[in-house]
Amino acid sequence: MEDDGSVKMELQFINWLLKTIPSSPSSLIGNGDDCAVIGHNDAKILVATDMLMDGTHFNADEMQPELIGRKAVAVNFSDIAAMGGKPLAVFISMAIPKNRSLTWTQKVLLGAQDISRQFQCGIDGGDTNTWAEKFAINVCVIGVPHWRGPVRRDGANDGDVVMITGQHLGGSLRSGHHASFTPRISEATWILDRYPVHSMTDISDGLATEAKHLAVASNKKFMINGDAVRNIGSDPIDFHSIFSDGEDFELLFTCSPEVAESLSKDFPWPCGLRKIGHVSTGKGVFICESDDKASSPLEFSGYEH
Amino acid sequence: MEDDGSVKMELQFINWLLKTIPSSPSSLIGNGDDCAVIGHNDAKILVATDMLMDGTHFNADEMQPELIGRKAVAVNFSDIAAMGGKPLAVFISMAIPKNRSLTWTQKVLLGAQDISRQFQCGIDGGDTNTWAEKFAINVCVIGVPHWRGPVRRDGANDGDVVMITGQHLGGSLRSGHHASFTPRISEATWILDRYPVHSMTDISDGLATEAKHLAVASNKKFMINGDAVRNIGSDPIDFHSIFSDGEDFELLFTCSPEVAESLSKDFPWPCGLRKIGHVSTGKGVFICESDDKASSPLEFSGYEH
Repeated sequence: MEDDGSVKMELQFINWLLKTIPSSPSSLIGNGDDCAVIGHNDAKILVATDMLMDGTHFNADEMQPELIGRKAVAVNFSDIAAMGGKPLAVFISMAIPKNRSLTWTQKVLLGAQDISRQFQCGIDGGDTNTWAEKFAINVCVIGVPHWRGPVRRDGANDGDVVMITGQHLGGSLRSGHHASFTPRISEATWILDRYPVHSMTDISDGLATEAKHLAVASNKKFMINGDAVRNIGSDPIDFHSIFSDGEDFELLFTCSPEVAESLSKDFPWPCGLRKIGHVSTGKGVFICESDDKASSPLEFSGYEH
Repeated sequence: MEDDGSVKMELQFINWLLKTIPSSPSSLIGNGDDCAVIGHNDAKILVATDMLMDGTHFNADEMQPELIGRKAVAVNFSDIAAMGGKPLAVFISMAIPKNRSLTWTQKVLLGAQDISRQFQCGIDGGDTNTWAEKFAINVCVIGVPHWRGPVRRDGANDGDVVMITGQHLGGSLRSGHHASFTPRISEATWILDRYPVHSMTDISDGLATEAKHLAVASNKKFMINGDAVRNIGSDPIDFHSIFSDGEDFELLFTCSPEVAESLSKDFPWPCGLRKIGHVSTGKGVFICESDDKASSPLEFSGYEH
């Protein structure tokens, strides 16, 4: 929903930040993965934080306040899921326009509570102030990794199978999925309880962008099977939307062919999962019409918030 | 800087929240102390979070961007100090007006980095977006408690001495102290390394309000010695300012008379500390002209952000 100038400024800023500002000594995985991982003695803590703003991430006059609160928590839970973790505590700060009622603000929090409770969390703190500007909400979620450890973006191996949860990609804003999705925490935990996963992220900025994140972090080539992706979902939706719309909040991960085979047979969750490609030596993300035919580089760009 | 209607709405909202929305099962100390304390296995994690907004907490056209970033981190560090803890990691989310330059935004972060580095932290994550509204910054700090455990507000005992760090109270906005103060992390750690402290908070909303927080949480009566407080600082400043201005960010704590005696002799930090009263059975906060004279209830109200 932003013009190119703003997006450019944000990217410039983030590049500058990553080059200039160091992380804390306790930071085990810094900026650039789905969550930060903080180590203290033997404990590892996951931290996800996202700020959603009226007019940028949603329209507060068109979206139910409960769904705004729900989404603000759910996008952070999705980041925790992307590392294979479990949320422990939720912190919510809000800048509330003076013309919003107490009831409206309460509904935002009730929506946040609803999704928090679904994953055995409450709301553990935050900050609330009013002002004359639009609504902004910042959520910070503290979590813990799975006993296998946080699943990073940079662990994809040669020969890995690229897998994805869910039946639909694309069209999330149109269908309302972006506001009502359930973060894949339970699914990620179920998989890790049984099998190792080599690299993982969640699809917030579109399959194209997220596949690139894994490929770049792992320094590998990702081949995406066009047929496998084209058939995702029952709705007729164009190829470009599948790769670029974003806000699908499905898990994108890579694992060994043996694990992929077992998962294809025994994954019990209604969302299902499918193989959509494989990893090899090289760089970049390519689409091929079948795994052994000539491929073309993926040029769709993801959704920029 | 806000009108009464907004403050009332905020208080109504917070009261509703505390009654209606439960904390996570992992929450050991919930809303109502300076930080949340999250427990997982044997680890305890402190979490402080504060959102500062242009026009509410500062004026972005009058305050240097470096000081805005510095203050946004420092107020959270002060909350960590108030529990006797140490910061481990810093997360910063910003809503940036489209008309602010890249350089301005970088200066905010450099100010945040400056104070973070002073306490062996970097910046470990966050979120940055632009919009057409004013500037807002949310900081979330993860910390760890001292080995003595988090110092809560509710531990004041009968016979405790009320103590305070620093040489000045009041006039913080006028003097610029509110933007340039150093959070009392090192001082709190030094004290706890040597002595037990029974209850503690930081003075963000004024001595009157913070003394009331300790008195109510501990279910005790706090007697503040007017003479001891009146002489705080070399600047001539009125009694009302000392109690009500806020943003002093000094430590207010209670300890046994023996510890108070030792601290008065061996506390080596330049800010110094002093005894300002004592704790007894009862309720409320009272000012007395000396510890054994008749007292009057304290009716100054604190600064409401």
